[in-house]
Amino acid sequence: MIERLLPCVGWLGRYDGVAFRGDALAAVIVTIMLIPQSLAYALLAGLPPQVGLYASMLPLIGYALFGSSSTLAVGPVAVVSLMTAAAVGEIAAAGTPEYAGAALALALLSGFFLIALGLLRLGFLASLLSHPVISGFITASGLLIAASQLKHILGVDAGGHTLLDLGRSLAGGIGETNLPTLAIGVAATAFLFWVRAWLKPLAMRLGLGARLADTLAKVGPIAAVLVTILLVDLFSLDAAGVQVVGAIPQGLPPIALPPVDLDLWRELIPSAVLISIVGFVESVSVAQTLAAKRRERIQPDRELVGLGAANIAASLGGGYPVTGGFARSVVNFDAGARTPLAGVLTAVGIGLTALLLTPLFHQLPKATLAATIVVAVLSLVDLGALKRTWVYSKADFAAMAATILTVLVAGVEAGILAGVGLSLVLFLARSARPHMAVVGQVPGTQHFRNVKRHEVVTSPSVLSLRIDESLFFANARWLEDKLYDMAVADPAIRHVVLICAAVNEIDASALESIETLSERLQAAGIDFHLSEVKGPVMDRLERSDLPDRLSGKIYLSQHDALAALDPETTRTAESGPRPRRSAAALAL
Amino acid sequence: MIERLLPCVGWLGRYDGVAFRGDALAAVIVTIMLIPQSLAYALLAGLPPQVGLYASMLPLIGYALFGSSSTLAVGPVAVVSLMTAAAVGEIAAAGTPEYAGAALALALLSGFFLIALGLLRLGFLASLLSHPVISGFITASGLLIAASQLKHILGVDAGGHTLLDLGRSLAGGIGETNLPTLAIGVAATAFLFWVRAWLKPLAMRLGLGARLADTLAKVGPIAAVLVTILLVDLFSLDAAGVQVVGAIPQGLPPIALPPVDLDLWRELIPSAVLISIVGFVESVSVAQTLAAKRRERIQPDRELVGLGAANIAASLGGGYPVTGGFARSVVNFDAGARTPLAGVLTAVGIGLTALLLTPLFHQLPKATLAATIVVAVLSLVDLGALKRTWVYSKADFAAMAATILTVLVAGVEAGILAGVGLSLVLFLARSARPHMAVVGQVPGTQHFRNVKRHEVVTSPSVLSLRIDESLFFANARWLEDKLYDMAVADPAIRHVVLICAAVNEIDASALESIETLSERLQAAGIDFHLSEVKGPVMDRLERSDLPDRLSGKIYLSQHDALAALDPETTRTAESGPRPRRSAAALAL
Repeated sequence: MIERLLPCVGWLGRYDGVAFRGDALAAVIVTIMLIPQSLAYALLAGLPPQVGLYASMLPLIGYALFGSSSTLAVGPVAVVSLMTAAAVGEIAAAGTPEYAGAALALALLSGFFLIALGLLRLGFLASLLSHPVISGFITASGLLIAASQLKHILGVDAGGHTLLDLGRSLAGGIGETNLPTLAIGVAATAFLFWVRAWLKPLAMRLGLGARLADTLAKVGPIAAVLVTILLVDLFSLDAAGVQVVGAIPQGLPPIALPPVDLDLWRELIPSAVLISIVGFVESVSVAQTLAAKRRERIQPDRELVGLGAANIAASLGGGYPVTGGFARSVVNFDAGARTPLAGVLTAVGIGLTALLLTPLFHQLPKATLAATIVVAVLSLVDLGALKRTWVYSKADFAAMAATILTVLVAGVEAGILAGVGLSLVLFLARSARPHMAVVGQVPGTQHFRNVKRHEVVTSPSVLSLRIDESLFFANARWLEDKLYDMAVADPAIRHVVLICAAVNEIDASALESIETLSERLQAAGIDFHLSEVKGPVMDRLERSDLPDRLSGKIYLSQHDALAALDPETTRTAESGPRPRRSAAALAL
Repeated sequence: MIERLLPCVGWLGRYDGVAFRGDALAAVIVTIMLIPQSLAYALLAGLPPQVGLYASMLPLIGYALFGSSSTLAVGPVAVVSLMTAAAVGEIAAAGTPEYAGAALALALLSGFFLIALGLLRLGFLASLLSHPVISGFITASGLLIAASQLKHILGVDAGGHTLLDLGRSLAGGIGETNLPTLAIGVAATAFLFWVRAWLKPLAMRLGLGARLADTLAKVGPIAAVLVTILLVDLFSLDAAGVQVVGAIPQGLPPIALPPVDLDLWRELIPSAVLISIVGFVESVSVAQTLAAKRRERIQPDRELVGLGAANIAASLGGGYPVTGGFARSVVNFDAGARTPLAGVLTAVGIGLTALLLTPLFHQLPKATLAATIVVAVLSLVDLGALKRTWVYSKADFAAMAATILTVLVAGVEAGILAGVGLSLVLFLARSARPHMAVVGQVPGTQHFRNVKRHEVVTSPSVLSLRIDESLFFANARWLEDKLYDMAVADPAIRHVVLICAAVNEIDASALESIETLSERLQAAGIDFHLSEVKGPVMDRLERSDLPDRLSGKIYLSQHDALAALDPETTRTAESGPRPRRSAAALAL
């Protein structure tokens, strides 16, 4: 019981020295990787650098207590940082206390929402985000983030939450490019791309083991940090106009309640919902991939609670919205993390950094952090997915392309809403026109088959239709129009029978459509009947007023219906010779 | 061809004296009914009374040219007036020129949107509004409208777009109730309820024919208008504090472009979309019901264009958003209207009223108009639908109740969005967990059946699953988790086979879930296979990278799959004795 509430009780009870060695090593490597990332993502979110460090402490402990993945590494990530900047930027100017306060409130609301989803077992809501929408969203966010960092690499003032605003603002400032900044930015970007692509093979050729070479490539970015700090310090580049991180307060995060301001909260709720769902979807997929490698399992509803706890911890401990990071979790896993204690130890590592090392980062150029971000996010951009999706499904391609374009042109929140909206509309458009067939009686049998595919006998006065899908709001209106049009097209028709053998559900909209259709047909002198209604569907229909309002009857079988409505044709059909095809084929 | 663009060409070509007599009589009756309604609905929308008359002229001609219903009576209606007040009230104060301008712009945008939907054949989007949501929306709007009119009946100052705001504001003003106003308001309301319920039976008992009695009941409300005007005039009740309509400019509507202000338009677009869809849904259902009585048909996409033309006409001719009215169309139909010319003649009637009769309405008490509205909208309130829906379907009830509560508490726009959102979420929640069965081989056959319902042989190392629904984004993630959990639950499992015989579609999300699942299972030492994939689905899968990324194979039949993956069990099963049930039962 207690283990269901607090999963940590389970793994702490089984903890041993082997697990600790794995966790400790992983924590050291993740800490080194996380230092530049946390500073950089805080910059991306428009927050002071120390906020990135704070968001990498308490949230990791919050997740370790409640999360269900043994290796997920929680903290600030690129896409959520961008979404935070977009949401909070609507409310306050970057750099003000109101801005930081709104970021804390956003983390709190996001935490509450995630926990509520988890406790109410509503994790399936994440399926509103189809894969093409997520993929398009991440690609477009990556492009937008990379574009937003150009100002730091050029050393100019610029801003904006869409590609257009960014481009216009950069074009205006490009004349004031600061050359030392540009040199550092380009060199750092080139170095980091080189580390990512070439350091591991090089290290292996120099005789290092694959695992050590891999670790070297992951912690390599810290070298760019240290070298550029030294360069700035030695040549006083900050005096030459190179923007540096500046003074970072030394010490642990302030523990405090985020601002309790209902008007602010109301404004932030939609953004908190979007950030929560995007963060959850990203996080749970990496957690599941890693869990599978150890034949473990992730409980999505527990993951929601774990991420919710992490975000509430972020809001109490001076951070901003967090989630599980992809690259970071893979590093944690590969470095041998066994339990969430690796996360706690990482938090301790970041805590020591905040206590002791922040003076070191005073001279760190913002261009170096921007280079870290650019290299990290460009690996998220997958334009090839557009082509693959186009080949596979035009509808999915449309949703993906709409998401990408809207993110770039109108920003992240509009983008995700456009993608979700279009996915739903396209899905409803498909569901709105289910397959329906006019059927007739196979001579010499009591079977009814599609008139287009079989030699069958049809009644001149009875139109028999078989529908191959459940009836619900998306196709109710279509059914109403389609059946009516088909019925009145032939003036000899006196009865319409809808065969419901494949109908698993009739919702209230479809029920009302059937009643309206019955009235419309009756006004045109035609009776409307149902046949072969399934048991559970019939039980519900009997609780409604349909049996009274239907102009016709509900028949157990289509044969019963036709025998009652047009006995003559039925007799003719049954006495007729069977078609040449075997009865076995007809039974299919 | 020309008839497809302009449906009026068709009926004008066949026009004759019989049709004219029907149209003219209907126009006279609808005009008498429309005069108090159009003044009252303009009041409800927060607009000057003449705007209601203007909205009952050009729009009727616009619809007559492009609409497809022969009897739909277009003009101002209660729910759309309320929605207009809510939308425009966000932008300007009632009574200002900006307010009237925004209402014109709203009609223009609504017209453009309706025409675009019609030309793009997107009428199916209206199915986003399920029947319970529409029903709940109309009931709640009716209650809200009735509540909003209480201030006119009490003669106090009050306002607000939610029940809470209205109640609070009324409670504050109730001490200042104006007694003559209250007397007129209560008497008019009682009289109008009496007309609606008792005038027709009384007239018939007095020897009038049913049709004449019915007409009398429909035009009865004009008596309340005339009598209360007389009372105010005779006893100078306006000096005693009875609010009257006041001076109405005499003459035809000003023809002018509505304000072209892109910022204003951007703010109004969401409201225009909602108003258009609600108006269309209401209008098309009454048009279809009436068309059925004459065995005619309505083309929903043409209706969109007709209503769009009516709204653009409203925006050019000094009106505000309009749609087809329910009661008014029924009266038009019953009075014998044959063609849309009845609408044109009604427009002429209203035009004569605007030219000649407006001085008459100077002393018309607002309380009388409020009584007209209250009596009209209370007939829309159907709280019994809540109970019927509860009995039939809990999910539909939830959507309906959420719509009603949100409309009352947070306003009309929030209400409709809440209802649509909840319908979709509940639908996805149902789709997210499709039916799935573990299957085994029927001994002595090559058939596979649900292990829970049949005596079958299962392989210890192969898990065979049959899924009974198409795979798409709403169930992709569920499938991924469910299959993985089932597979790793038994350590002996080495292969999972998903039988796709009932899968009509695999969208890009489901494709990616299958690939991810394959990788997760492979990481756990399990191969993942598909069998019995349908032709069209297979064609698309072959265009994807699935054949390369799937750890297992795609088998033509489940029997092939099992014979390859566990030949021993297959041999045992096939040589085993058939179960006692007949082979025919197994073929089902």
